[in-house]
Amino acid sequence: MIDNVVAPDQAASFSLAIDAMGGDDAPEIVVAGLDLAADRHPGARFLLFGDEARLTPLLARYKKAAQIAQIAHTTEAITMEMRPTSALRLRDSSLRMAITAVADGRARGVVSAGNSGALLALAKILLKTLPGISRPAMAAVNPSARGDVVMLDLGANISCDARNLVEFAVMGEAFSQAVLGLPAPRIGLLNVGVEELKGDERLRCAADALRASPLSAQFLGFVEGHDITAGTADVVVTDGFTGNIALKTGEGALKLAAQLLQQIFKTNLLTKIGYILVRPGLRRMREWIDPRQYNGAVFVGLNGIVVKSHGGADAEGFASAIDVAMDAVDNEVNKKIRSRLKQIQFLQEAPDTYESGAPTPD
Amino acid sequence: MIDNVVAPDQAASFSLAIDAMGGDDAPEIVVAGLDLAADRHPGARFLLFGDEARLTPLLARYKKAAQIAQIAHTTEAITMEMRPTSALRLRDSSLRMAITAVADGRARGVVSAGNSGALLALAKILLKTLPGISRPAMAAVNPSARGDVVMLDLGANISCDARNLVEFAVMGEAFSQAVLGLPAPRIGLLNVGVEELKGDERLRCAADALRASPLSAQFLGFVEGHDITAGTADVVVTDGFTGNIALKTGEGALKLAAQLLQQIFKTNLLTKIGYILVRPGLRRMREWIDPRQYNGAVFVGLNGIVVKSHGGADAEGFASAIDVAMDAVDNEVNKKIRSRLKQIQFLQEAPDTYESGAPTPD
Repeated sequence: MIDNVVAPDQAASFSLAIDAMGGDDAPEIVVAGLDLAADRHPGARFLLFGDEARLTPLLARYKKAAQIAQIAHTTEAITMEMRPTSALRLRDSSLRMAITAVADGRARGVVSAGNSGALLALAKILLKTLPGISRPAMAAVNPSARGDVVMLDLGANISCDARNLVEFAVMGEAFSQAVLGLPAPRIGLLNVGVEELKGDERLRCAADALRASPLSAQFLGFVEGHDITAGTADVVVTDGFTGNIALKTGEGALKLAAQLLQQIFKTNLLTKIGYILVRPGLRRMREWIDPRQYNGAVFVGLNGIVVKSHGGADAEGFASAIDVAMDAVDNEVNKKIRSRLKQIQFLQEAPDTYESGAPTPD
Repeated sequence: MIDNVVAPDQAASFSLAIDAMGGDDAPEIVVAGLDLAADRHPGARFLLFGDEARLTPLLARYKKAAQIAQIAHTTEAITMEMRPTSALRLRDSSLRMAITAVADGRARGVVSAGNSGALLALAKILLKTLPGISRPAMAAVNPSARGDVVMLDLGANISCDARNLVEFAVMGEAFSQAVLGLPAPRIGLLNVGVEELKGDERLRCAADALRASPLSAQFLGFVEGHDITAGTADVVVTDGFTGNIALKTGEGALKLAAQLLQQIFKTNLLTKIGYILVRPGLRRMREWIDPRQYNGAVFVGLNGIVVKSHGGADAEGFASAIDVAMDAVDNEVNKKIRSRLKQIQFLQEAPDTYESGAPTPD
């Protein structure tokens, strides 16, 4: 298996760099996920960063993974609990080296199930933001009654100003086009009401800028919390604080519904028979809203594709995160962002006018 | 039915003043809701503000409502679309006169299914906030896996500072004690993570103040979006922007789950039989998470109980809003808030230190 080890300075063209040591059950889950990805992306090549002594026997077991992956040995790993400032100090962590491979042009994107804060901090430092983007955002796909919806920011930025929100709209459009294949996604700005006067100055200012931009035909204006799962918009734009809480609240509500259903089906013999009759449909429903299927949040707005898998993801979940990264790489999400940015006046003129992130009182 | 008309200057002691003209299907739904409330609150007396010519025939039809309600004639009504500034100009609106009845001591609380913005604006002006409270908040009860959870603010304040959040915790505790009967509700502050360093300065400052307060034993620290439906806390405290979006996102997710279930049960003959077998349980589940049952958001922190029913509520929903108002009145939520406020150092000392509502970048 020594053939799978690549020297750090060996230039090569890889689809993705993979942080093998990040996540609750790394590195086994990561290698098992690669094994699943091998069937879906037969032409892809992956550069696997981590402890060679642990990865070599895993690749011996997961033979399909071994065919598409090469090991790049690293001596350190960032734990899930480590603070970003401590994580940054490690010079040879699997995460840092995987991101470095993207910065060096050896890989086009990176996937990690590790520490989110460290991933974002290292990606910002090593890859830098795209020209014209002030802050990267965390974007992911969520289920709705009318198909998949892209939501961003999901937590990369606790506070955002109007300019950030407009940038998120641009990045969300490109992400939706690249990953979901929608030619002209409809964009909504998350607010407490749909009327133009709702929310704060920051939201009204971002809405005005989008209405005056080339995105105007796709811009629906303000949308509300229930619009996320209703699928009113294809892209839901919000600040990282609200987005993170909305995402987790929606997941929690679906979990509550599932728990209640389970209780109902367990009530007595008749309900158990009822369960057997509807089981195939329930299985489809579960698959459809399965968080594993939606695993893989992307930090958009950086010079390179950066995908965060859930730390507790299983092999199937990690493979989904690889799917997202491959879609973003293959469909050139960053090229789409750059060309759209050039068209938006708001982001070229007088950005300082809108720098305040402070919401005004209603 | 002329006996049901009370002259505006006639002093009387009423449990609640009711805005008969507010809501999508007012005044009929309001009177029908009172009819249901008559059985649940036989000793209560209601003062019904609205157009006598329309209310008199309704009370003739809803005989139980007629037994507990008296009409107070008003000549104007605030529409759902009216902006608060326009609504404030109407001197004889049913909403204004109903709130005035509370301000005058003729009624102990008010219930309206009308314009939320106008209700909040008029209530602030006519009732004023409780001593020691800087801003009222909108609170409501929501379902969770471990029982009912109080959440506030749900939209009264788009931006909030640390002081506001601490006040919301105090008001949420009193609301939970009065309406849900919990002696020592556990309080959580909504954030993007549970670690002490998460969120912005405003949240960390509010958390520090609560840890140093007599509420410390009940304070769980930060909770996340999924904790709302998990029932981790009995009271979830957040700003009005986030709270409004979290509430609607959770409702939307439950609606999505219900739609998916409906599709599954309709698939074929077997699934239809399955539906019949689990129908009683599904009905209980639907009742349990029925938004009508949770109708009735309270504007807490004012000198008087102010309850907002959903504008589209039916008679059952309006009756639930009356239940909430009666619980708040009977269990003296405001007395509980006042006595707790006296114990909180943070709110008496140096409030100016924490006045900034601006979140800091992470």
